[in-house]
Amino acid sequence: MGLGKVSILLGSKSDLPYIEGCVKVLKEFGIDYEVKIISAHRTPELLEEFLKREDFDLYIAAAGYAAHLPGVVASKTLKPVIGIPLDTSPLMGGLDALLSIVQMPPGIPVATVTVGKAGGTNAAVLAAQILSLKYPELVSKLQEYRQKMKEKIIKANEELNF
Amino acid sequence: MGLGKVSILLGSKSDLPYIEGCVKVLKEFGIDYEVKIISAHRTPELLEEFLKREDFDLYIAAAGYAAHLPGVVASKTLKPVIGIPLDTSPLMGGLDALLSIVQMPPGIPVATVTVGKAGGTNAAVLAAQILSLKYPELVSKLQEYRQKMKEKIIKANEELNF
Amino acid sequence: MGLGKVSILLGSKSDLPYIEGCVKVLKEFGIDYEVKIISAHRTPELLEEFLKREDFDLYIAAAGYAAHLPGVVASKTLKPVIGIPLDTSPLMGGLDALLSIVQMPPGIPVATVTVGKAGGTNAAVLAAQILSLKYPELVSKLQEYRQKMKEKIIKANEELNF
Amino acid sequence: MGLGKVSILLGSKSDLPYIEGCVKVLKEFGIDYEVKIISAHRTPELLEEFLKREDFDLYIAAAGYAAHLPGVVASKTLKPVIGIPLDTSPLMGGLDALLSIVQMPPGIPVATVTVGKAGGTNAAVLAAQILSLKYPELVSKLQEYRQKMKEKIIKANEELNF
Amino acid sequence: MGLGKVSILLGSKSDLPYIEGCVKVLKEFGIDYEVKIISAHRTPELLEEFLKREDFDLYIAAAGYAAHLPGVVASKTLKPVIGIPLDTSPLMGGLDALLSIVQMPPGIPVATVTVGKAGGTNAAVLAAQILSLKYPELVSKLQEYRQKMKEKIIKANEELNF
Amino acid sequence: MGLGKVSILLGSKSDLPYIEGCVKVLKEFGIDYEVKIISAHRTPELLEEFLKREDFDLYIAAAGYAAHLPGVVASKTLKPVIGIPLDTSPLMGGLDALLSIVQMPPGIPVATVTVGKAGGTNAAVLAAQILSLKYPELVSKLQEYRQKMKEKIIKANEELNF
Amino acid sequence: MGLGKVSILLGSKSDLPYIEGCVKVLKEFGIDYEVKIISAHRTPELLEEFLKREDFDLYIAAAGYAAHLPGVVASKTLKPVIGIPLDTSPLMGGLDALLSIVQMPPGIPVATVTVGKAGGTNAAVLAAQILSLKYPELVSKLQEYRQKMKEKIIKANEELNF
Amino acid sequence: MGLGKVSILLGSKSDLPYIEGCVKVLKEFGIDYEVKIISAHRTPELLEEFLKREDFDLYIAAAGYAAHLPGVVASKTLKPVIGIPLDTSPLMGGLDALLSIVQMPPGIPVATVTVGKAGGTNAAVLAAQILSLKYPELVSKLQEYRQKMKEKIIKANEELNF
Repeated sequence: MGLGKVSILLGSKSDLPYIEGCVKVLKEFGIDYEVKIISAHRTPELLEEFLKREDFDLYIAAAGYAAHLPGVVASKTLKPVIGIPLDTSPLMGGLDALLSIVQMPPGIPVATVTVGKAGGTNAAVLAAQILSLKYPELVSKLQEYRQKMKEKIIKANEELNF
Repeated sequence: MGLGKVSILLGSKSDLPYIEGCVKVLKEFGIDYEVKIISAHRTPELLEEFLKREDFDLYIAAAGYAAHLPGVVASKTLKPVIGIPLDTSPLMGGLDALLSIVQMPPGIPVATVTVGKAGGTNAAVLAAQILSLKYPELVSKLQEYRQKMKEKIIKANEELNF
Repeated sequence: MGLGKVSILLGSKSDLPYIEGCVKVLKEFGIDYEVKIISAHRTPELLEEFLKREDFDLYIAAAGYAAHLPGVVASKTLKPVIGIPLDTSPLMGGLDALLSIVQMPPGIPVATVTVGKAGGTNAAVLAAQILSLKYPELVSKLQEYRQKMKEKIIKANEELNF
Repeated sequence: MGLGKVSILLGSKSDLPYIEGCVKVLKEFGIDYEVKIISAHRTPELLEEFLKREDFDLYIAAAGYAAHLPGVVASKTLKPVIGIPLDTSPLMGGLDALLSIVQMPPGIPVATVTVGKAGGTNAAVLAAQILSLKYPELVSKLQEYRQKMKEKIIKANEELNF
Repeated sequence: MGLGKVSILLGSKSDLPYIEGCVKVLKEFGIDYEVKIISAHRTPELLEEFLKREDFDLYIAAAGYAAHLPGVVASKTLKPVIGIPLDTSPLMGGLDALLSIVQMPPGIPVATVTVGKAGGTNAAVLAAQILSLKYPELVSKLQEYRQKMKEKIIKANEELNF
Repeated sequence: MGLGKVSILLGSKSDLPYIEGCVKVLKEFGIDYEVKIISAHRTPELLEEFLKREDFDLYIAAAGYAAHLPGVVASKTLKPVIGIPLDTSPLMGGLDALLSIVQMPPGIPVATVTVGKAGGTNAAVLAAQILSLKYPELVSKLQEYRQKMKEKIIKANEELNF
Repeated sequence: MGLGKVSILLGSKSDLPYIEGCVKVLKEFGIDYEVKIISAHRTPELLEEFLKREDFDLYIAAAGYAAHLPGVVASKTLKPVIGIPLDTSPLMGGLDALLSIVQMPPGIPVATVTVGKAGGTNAAVLAAQILSLKYPELVSKLQEYRQKMKEKIIKANEELNF
Repeated sequence: MGLGKVSILLGSKSDLPYIEGCVKVLKEFGIDYEVKIISAHRTPELLEEFLKREDFDLYIAAAGYAAHLPGVVASKTLKPVIGIPLDTSPLMGGLDALLSIVQMPPGIPVATVTVGKAGGTNAAVLAAQILSLKYPELVSKLQEYRQKMKEKIIKANEELNF
């Protein structure tokens, strides 16, 4: 059994490539996850039903355009919701999704991360940080993850010949 | 009995001044309306219940910040939904609300109008135009309304001494 | 004979790909339509003449750059006008067209939808919603359309192996 | 008789303060002008009639929001049209008007100047520069105007005690 | 003893009014907190020392301009960091702070909330949601908080006479 | 001898493709022109010398990035200056060049046209409109040009089979 | 005699309040300075003459709107030029000035600092950092300045009773 | 031995192509440099250690996304820091990096240059201008560099056949 369970919700099937990094990091941390395609607007009842299965520790929701999915999830759960803005519309490289996710009115927050694929990775790391409050085993895994990032940069410097 | 019935939904009590022009124009056109404060996120069940009373011809929803209200209403009704973006957040004069309302994904449109108070007026006129398909008496009222706008401009020119 | 008649106006021949989804959805709903290339600025008289043939229930106008077409149409008809902002200029992915369409001054609204191809689809669905006030047969078709969207998402989830 | 005749068109009576500087500079240059409130959308016929009186050398049109007035004037005359974007909507300090005026499609240009009151002054100076091709007396007046600007700056430096 | 302990960090003394709502909500939830003014750039050593006292469950950091504080805190702790973008610079109502906080590179996330005072409130609610994983007593408090929001809206509707 | 003489100035050799449409239209109108690569910043003395040859009726200047060229030319001539903003920097599709050209302070206007290639064409048409005050033969050519645009659109409609 | 000499150039008399912080910091560092109002466009010859007096170590230029002053100065000197973007136009809180200053084409850089009054202070500190390469006495003064900033924050924390 | 020593810091290995122009210009000027990949967030201790080797005259730091690297370097040195904003995120062509670098709070400036590759070149030229205060041999090299730019433009004009 994993160190916590995360529900990853996508607004559309075509958004899948954006969460590859997210899934990879969750696996690395040993966190259970479930990926589901659920549209806030096209399948509101599906979302409703799904959210009644209250066995997740937190939600990650990724969406583009007027990205309501994270906010709508947040309005129906008391668990933390992480939102990933996607640059899938032609408009300003994802500013539409960023503002639709981050600018939630007072009382119903969405923990918003970086626009695009970088946001996928960051959602997973933030999930691990949040879950580490409940599953302290994650602390050393987070330390390791950070150590690896550092080593990768040290190695990049060694290979550098500018 | 009025020429159609419109439901006006506001995300917050403090948004009321934004729809004064909207209400004034609907009255002028003899269209019945009902104003309701309903938050997409803070009162999702209230919204659900309210939308089951399917006796409205169309919905007007005004909201600021990550203005999900119009889109969430649109996802739960087959009637036309008009969205008014409000400039209530400090960010870029309402661009957040505009993008959150207009950038709906394919299949669930929101008929978006001008940001702010001008949008209140325009939502009412658009409502009258839409309702005129069902209530043809509205056509002459729309003509009159436009005539008055013209006369106001003619009068402004007469008073002009530049 | 169709369930209402919609006039689709494009600012330029090169904008045609943007309304393929629009035309497809209107066909699916059994709504008659006519596509016309008319520039607000390059053929103002053509537009004038065309708009005198007052046999349309509503107008859909798509344009890029300083997209005046929807607003100019709106100033010459009392019927509802739906505007689709196109991302055809190099500037900010269509923000120019979006603001030129949605920011109409009080009294002459344009029902603005999503920027780009998603907006094409949404214009057609919004047209069906508006026409359903006059042609109630459209209500069940709208229900069906939404049902299909839901089923497509359910199927996408079944095929998902993440 | 003046050195050329300029028509100044405003979208709304409330825009008058924006062109005070414009009128002041035209007077200083001895250019005849006429101020008219005409809305591209609310009084399209008025605009049409007005533009048939083809006795102006050029047009200056100021508008806020989806500022179509300059572009619509440009589509109905072969004379140069100068557009002044106004920051009258709450959105982004006039970016809506700027993009609606400057982003004209190929073939129908609008000579766009600075947003707001500075644009009023600049429209008048640009008008004088354009008219100087036909009325060479304006060249020395333009030189004088520039000389005065220079002297004002020299004087400001003399008074400076920082 | 409180239900978790939160460190609230501000970039500047003048930012204090922005977190009044944050402090009020944390008190209401019975969460311990400590407010500290620490600048990522002007007092980097102070920040370093402070972060060594690893007895906080999570960090809330608010900053305007090039708001590096949340990201710098995130780079020095494995705990979750919530960032509040402030609209304190003249530029675009806080877009500078929003992008500086949310656009963190992959590996070091900041959980970004709404720009301005609404963000203060949302940071506190998000903190409570995150802490509820460790302190389950917070779940009923979150339910109550949401219930109160609902009741406030119901009451606003009762008082409404439009 | 041509109907007026226009100087086309480019900030860089790589900007040449942007003015192909400009040159084509000027030729069509029988207006003499000269293309010159001159950088406001890298060759200020060259610009100075060049502008002393005061035999042009007007200037067209195209530039990207912080596009100072049109404004600097405007500060050294009393003739009208048309500015074309180019989308050559990675930032926001040319918004940098647009604002650097259009936002001239009061007293030194630049007649700004559309961003990118459409701006090239519009600069030429605006030049013809301005020159028509001095060379009335251009009026019929402008009429013809507009007539051709109209015919092209009529033809596009005939070929349309949607 | 001071530790280096800085020329502060302002586009307009009304910009003076923006550089009060700049002047105060330069005084504190013991750096000589001279304030001059010079417009890149309205007084190009004045600028030319002024820049021939090559006795400054570096230039600080502040301007709003299409802020060409810093770039034009940079094109006429080989000394470092620091640019302060001012939020004096109504458009987007100074984004116009920021892009006009920072987006200089390759070869002629402007060292751009924060928009508005904060930029005034930062220009002075950057000037001191640059001058410290030539006047090493400035290093200890910079250390002191930073120490004072730190102490001010420590004191603010002591006075804090939240 | 070179004319000064510059440290070039990159946020990520993939940013290397952005500084090719920078390195080329520094070589041309005979300025020593060292390229290092150091992340403000992923390797804060590495950065700390590196900055203790205080043998550089100035720092150039390039970063994309929430580009904190230049600001964090600036907070830990008294030497001038030049920041290059990179357009590596999908959002608005690098506006995120630009605002994160330039909008530093009062007291800790970053000398910000053009977004992207043009910024690489400009960082090197600005470095040479700053270093010329200490190494006067750089003045003639800067003159030469500017002369070459001028000659390149003169040659481009000779080859022009438009």
